[in-house]
Amino acid sequence: MKTLVLVGHPEYDNSQTAAFLRQAQVDLNMVDWQVLQPTSSFDTMTEQQRLMKYDRIILQFPMYWYSAPAIMKQYLDEVLTVNFVDVRRDGCLRGKELGIVVTLGDPLKDYQSGGREDVSLSELLKPYQAIAHKAGMRFLPSFPVAQFAYMTPQAKQQLLIDYRGYLANSNFDTFKGQQSWYLQQLAYFKSQLSPEKQSQLSIIMDYLDNNAQQLDELNWELALIKKEEDE
Amino acid sequence: MKTLVLVGHPEYDNSQTAAFLRQAQVDLNMVDWQVLQPTSSFDTMTEQQRLMKYDRIILQFPMYWYSAPAIMKQYLDEVLTVNFVDVRRDGCLRGKELGIVVTLGDPLKDYQSGGREDVSLSELLKPYQAIAHKAGMRFLPSFPVAQFAYMTPQAKQQLLIDYRGYLANSNFDTFKGQQSWYLQQLAYFKSQLSPEKQSQLSIIMDYLDNNAQQLDELNWELALIKKEEDE
Repeated sequence: MKTLVLVGHPEYDNSQTAAFLRQAQVDLNMVDWQVLQPTSSFDTMTEQQRLMKYDRIILQFPMYWYSAPAIMKQYLDEVLTVNFVDVRRDGCLRGKELGIVVTLGDPLKDYQSGGREDVSLSELLKPYQAIAHKAGMRFLPSFPVAQFAYMTPQAKQQLLIDYRGYLANSNFDTFKGQQSWYLQQLAYFKSQLSPEKQSQLSIIMDYLDNNAQQLDELNWELALIKKEEDE
Repeated sequence: MKTLVLVGHPEYDNSQTAAFLRQAQVDLNMVDWQVLQPTSSFDTMTEQQRLMKYDRIILQFPMYWYSAPAIMKQYLDEVLTVNFVDVRRDGCLRGKELGIVVTLGDPLKDYQSGGREDVSLSELLKPYQAIAHKAGMRFLPSFPVAQFAYMTPQAKQQLLIDYRGYLANSNFDTFKGQQSWYLQQLAYFKSQLSPEKQSQLSIIMDYLDNNAQQLDELNWELALIKKEEDE
């Protein structure tokens, strides 16, 4: 699976959050990172050809007045022609995935009915979901990063892990998908360690693998019980 | 009541719809019409001072990928500073009205759950409603103009009347408000007619005025009946 992260951020060079996320994915070979640069107009053909190369397209931006900054909108307005997008006209994005990484200055709990903003993120992101719908793309659950500056080191570490999964794990939104992806990632890191550390990591990986198998067995039994209930 | 129509339209000079709407309001003294011109950045102070002069602010734009074109977003990003908007920080827009005139290339019925777009206009316009909420403004019901090119002359005439009301009638969303506003408008036109036509129009206006009074009496009786039911 190949992923493109399109970053639309007018203050990219000054953003700690953007720098952290950039660093978090820099070693992922199947992920490309493209920062939108101010321009009078984007080259429609070049950008369309780029988009076609990827399976997962991520729009990453800070929330500016409840949607993407103008530069991201300019990109969408100029690059997404109707014939390129509309699945009813054999558009070229069909079957791909569209994800949204949105950074927020306010806590996530503000974004709900009755919360300070009185509107949910899901509601605010409807225009992007509508693009995915038009294009016959799968719209992924969004990936919000709220108040990065106030996060504890542990929370940042968790963010790093989750973010890498959102970009590169084809099955990031199930527990089983996360589990097998972590094991793959550990196998990759293992090859870079000293022999002594390798054998330590092997023990941890065996333990995780064993857990995964136990969980599979439990799920299988559970499925059997549910099936009997239905009969 | 003073109204500002802010037009964000990358193809303004070629748009029949924009030209029609421009013409429809040109004689309304209390309405100002401002077309956003491409610029590397808007002058924040000048634009903020302009906004403060109006009671009703209308954002008018063609729907581009389910939201305003990039130029309108650039205006919002650059002109609406947090201190200027946020009602909790004594923002300057409190109590004003925010309206949206949105032109659509597809029929309005596409914009509903189960429709072709599978999303409603109200959902798509949530980001603008959220700005109004943040600013302590009243968010008006939106004014969609769908498929202008296919409208009959009668439909265009109705559009013209409704659009003028949306811009200039402080009470456009009740029947009574529409009625009294039409009478005001007719009184204004009357002064420009020949004496003979004036007396003809007077007869029509008396008839309308009479109808309005009858309706008031009926409403009054209805209110009385409802009140008795409650007791």
